[in-house]
Amino acid sequence: METVSTNRAFGGVQGVYRHASAVTGTDMTFSVYVPPHEAGATLPVVWYLSGLTCTHANVTDKGEYRRLCAELGLIFVAPDTSPRGEGVPDDPDGAYDFGLGAGFYVDATQQPFAQHYRMWSYVTQELPALVAAHFPADPDRQSIMGHSMGGHGALTIGLTFPDRYKAVSAFAPIVAPSQVPWGHKALGGYLGDDRAAWRKHDAVALIEDGARLPALLVDQGAADAFLEPQLRPGLLRAACDGAGIPLTLTLRDGYDHSYYFIATFMGDHLRWHAARLTQQGAA
Amino acid sequence: METVSTNRAFGGVQGVYRHASAVTGTDMTFSVYVPPHEAGATLPVVWYLSGLTCTHANVTDKGEYRRLCAELGLIFVAPDTSPRGEGVPDDPDGAYDFGLGAGFYVDATQQPFAQHYRMWSYVTQELPALVAAHFPADPDRQSIMGHSMGGHGALTIGLTFPDRYKAVSAFAPIVAPSQVPWGHKALGGYLGDDRAAWRKHDAVALIEDGARLPALLVDQGAADAFLEPQLRPGLLRAACDGAGIPLTLTLRDGYDHSYYFIATFMGDHLRWHAARLTQQGAA
Repeated sequence: METVSTNRAFGGVQGVYRHASAVTGTDMTFSVYVPPHEAGATLPVVWYLSGLTCTHANVTDKGEYRRLCAELGLIFVAPDTSPRGEGVPDDPDGAYDFGLGAGFYVDATQQPFAQHYRMWSYVTQELPALVAAHFPADPDRQSIMGHSMGGHGALTIGLTFPDRYKAVSAFAPIVAPSQVPWGHKALGGYLGDDRAAWRKHDAVALIEDGARLPALLVDQGAADAFLEPQLRPGLLRAACDGAGIPLTLTLRDGYDHSYYFIATFMGDHLRWHAARLTQQGAA
Repeated sequence: METVSTNRAFGGVQGVYRHASAVTGTDMTFSVYVPPHEAGATLPVVWYLSGLTCTHANVTDKGEYRRLCAELGLIFVAPDTSPRGEGVPDDPDGAYDFGLGAGFYVDATQQPFAQHYRMWSYVTQELPALVAAHFPADPDRQSIMGHSMGGHGALTIGLTFPDRYKAVSAFAPIVAPSQVPWGHKALGGYLGDDRAAWRKHDAVALIEDGARLPALLVDQGAADAFLEPQLRPGLLRAACDGAGIPLTLTLRDGYDHSYYFIATFMGDHLRWHAARLTQQGAA
């Protein structure tokens, strides 16, 4: 693991790191904020998965999470959204919603994507092990959040590993990719036409198929241009109601899909995560 | 004035705007955050001047000022750092420390810069009038802060108009451009070789020549690579001590020159400004 940069911030250290990923077969860059802490302490880890077109840098620059992570004692990890580099295939038309910057947190089974596009295994296996080895992280106290495509990632990963992630939340997530254009394109392109394979990567389908969480927090901007065509939080509301999952879903008047929206509610989410991570830590 | 973008953030509106500046003879872009407020209210205005290479966007993206401005009821204005566009001369070698992105908040007298490089008049006259006309701003409650070159701008403007700006603060400012390489190049290039003309654009010289402020707040990263060669806060300390200006200057261990440093201490500065703006408003 190579250190790209470190900067003191809010009493802790914001770092950017790079490593050769065995899973994606590429170099991968990610950011980690380590709050001020006592020597020898291990800290809970919040995973943040980013949306389409993003790298680790968007939330690192604009997410305004450091003040709260310093106050609450949380490590904050932001991975990239796809493999990148020479030999990594992109969308044939260079579109923003597939390929580079759009890994959708799946392990692709289709060519030519299957070799490098393995973001599910990268985010759930390889990177957690790397973080545990290099940072004062407590693997028993992890939680996950994300935005848009990353909200989809946080929900599907959280629903798949409910014991590992003690809290799951999302900003403007894609809740049912099988039912919206972004998801049709991505899941079809990475996983093929057999829609049965899509259900493990669709939060609403996972819940319909029996996945459960003790609680779920979602904020959604009411002025988000993607609300109806791509995000459709009502589908998550219906699935959670049907399954008895307590979902706190708030539609935020006037807010759009941007990091201005995310930063506004980041504090609420981090406090919600910290409450659940601390509870678990004490248990 | 043209609206480039508006986004809801922390209950208020973060906007980016463009206008044809009569002073610089170019289009100029700036950002304004208006916090939530009662209809008809007028609010205090904090001016933020940015450093070398920056536009309005750096602090708008990374400054983490909106939460506090919303809480404290402050309008926050971030101008660009130089004129830009066709016909605007740059540094002959394209260096980062002169020309585009490096206006140094002076009205240039030297050719070929005198026509467009008039950031002093732009920031102290034209833009305040524009902001007062288009936003719920109270011209009697303004304050000014800045970073690096923008800290130089905030100090020199604040010292020149102590009645207009009720609070003056800076992050890692250039306090004595006449005594450091950045300043030699910029003041020489914009104002010529007569060093008498430089004194009005040098905070330490202004204080030596009799300018006074009721208080001054400066934070400086101790790990800032520019600390000794360019910033030299000790010169400001000596000048303030000599003049009886109460200066709160704090050297921040481990912090560098970046927006991670600025964001960390932005809250302290905004609270300090708000206390003085509210005091004045009540007087």
